[in-house]
Amino acid sequence: MRHRTATVAISSGILAAALVASAGMRRQGDDLEQAEALASLLQSRAIDLTHTFDDQTIYWPKDKHFCHERTQWGETEGGTGWYASATYSASEHGGTHLDSPIHFAEGQATTDQISIDRLIGPAVVVDVTEACRADRDYQLQTADLMAWESRHGRIPDRAIVLVRTGFGAFWPDKNQYLGTDKPGDVANLHFPGIGPEAARWLVAERSLSGIGLDTASLDHGPSQDFAAHRILNGAGLFGLENVANLDQLPEAGAVILAFPMKIGGGSGGPTRIVALLPEPRDGD
Amino acid sequence: MRHRTATVAISSGILAAALVASAGMRRQGDDLEQAEALASLLQSRAIDLTHTFDDQTIYWPKDKHFCHERTQWGETEGGTGWYASATYSASEHGGTHLDSPIHFAEGQATTDQISIDRLIGPAVVVDVTEACRADRDYQLQTADLMAWESRHGRIPDRAIVLVRTGFGAFWPDKNQYLGTDKPGDVANLHFPGIGPEAARWLVAERSLSGIGLDTASLDHGPSQDFAAHRILNGAGLFGLENVANLDQLPEAGAVILAFPMKIGGGSGGPTRIVALLPEPRDGD
Repeated sequence: MRHRTATVAISSGILAAALVASAGMRRQGDDLEQAEALASLLQSRAIDLTHTFDDQTIYWPKDKHFCHERTQWGETEGGTGWYASATYSASEHGGTHLDSPIHFAEGQATTDQISIDRLIGPAVVVDVTEACRADRDYQLQTADLMAWESRHGRIPDRAIVLVRTGFGAFWPDKNQYLGTDKPGDVANLHFPGIGPEAARWLVAERSLSGIGLDTASLDHGPSQDFAAHRILNGAGLFGLENVANLDQLPEAGAVILAFPMKIGGGSGGPTRIVALLPEPRDGD
Repeated sequence: MRHRTATVAISSGILAAALVASAGMRRQGDDLEQAEALASLLQSRAIDLTHTFDDQTIYWPKDKHFCHERTQWGETEGGTGWYASATYSASEHGGTHLDSPIHFAEGQATTDQISIDRLIGPAVVVDVTEACRADRDYQLQTADLMAWESRHGRIPDRAIVLVRTGFGAFWPDKNQYLGTDKPGDVANLHFPGIGPEAARWLVAERSLSGIGLDTASLDHGPSQDFAAHRILNGAGLFGLENVANLDQLPEAGAVILAFPMKIGGGSGGPTRIVALLPEPRDGD
């Protein structure tokens, strides 16, 4: 529990007053409530769940890694002053990124086709750190989801489920995170994932928007058939992989904003993922 | 101002109840208010302010355009099923994107260094559509900002100012949007931007997080010295360029989420920009 002081209410109040005054004076009922909620949202603590893209960024061993090239970086020749610019390139499926439903399921949505409403949802954080410490190929079980529900209630509709394996702590050490640091080596991948049975249960019994975790793949390292991907993408769910800082989230109560680069016809893409916590931000 | 009533839970519905129940039962006071605000946020109408990245995406005439290459797209040879994957590449400064403060100001923040708290802020939408219709090289004036304040009150701290020129309607027609469709032609750029005097006033008198618009540059097309960029980036503000759908925003009351791809040492990057409106989403 974070310490609260009167300052929080005061500084929140000023901003809320400004927003509500500017937006809501002529509004009524629900609109005014939404305006107040938005003002309050601005006071929520935000956590960045995204790893930085750089030359340490972990990719699937056979995929094109992230490349950043400066095209201009310094004083311009014409003497008009400083100018910095660069290009970037990579596979859609490395670093903190989204798997579009089409990634493993023909005819499903591409990156640009996923509705914004699905990219904002209540966080359901399922902790399996202990199990993954004992078995680095652990697969999330339906029982893990049941255990979460026994503590927090039914997984809400539109939830974004985030599986916390503890492997985020290994980033960016490829040996620890993937099980291998050899380029192209897909024979020695060992890390946790989502079991097919749990994936089937989620698709059949609950109504998620997406599901992610702090490893390189929805399927665990040894997978050859990518069953969890096929089941989840096949049901129109997006995936989030290499999610950062899951240790900073409560099991319930946060809201996830998972915004991928809007790639037309994309099978995925780099994604900025942010959690808003149900507590006031630092410093307010 | 952050007072909550039972009507919030009712209007926000079952989702709010679930979220608050799961997060807030053991919490008190401000934390409970934040949990309720987050639940209500999930009911806000969201607008995507992002153009899709594809072969129509508009870039600065001399910059590397967006390229998307499929590496696999169909049934795999091994018979394990469908698999789609691709690579992407581009300049950091095209499409809907962010200019990091370092873009035009040495020593300022790179893309990954911009705090999440600055990337979420109240929207201040300044409409200059009429002036831009009369003069396609129009520059935002301090008087335009004063006019906004006369209607909505002082520009709030941490605001993200969005200048609506009306040029978003021209996307992706380069001739209409930029003034030229010739590759490499920077001599015939004509579109609206932010005047240096207005930029200076904002930096000196208000406390923004960033500023953007629905054209290709913070500075208007004919600019040779990029004065607005230098003033705004020099004060640590980020820019947002080629912002989409500004015609769908109210002048005040929305909240902007501008999440760039987290490029380490980036001078900018592709950005997913979303507005949350102070009104319930469709269908609720």
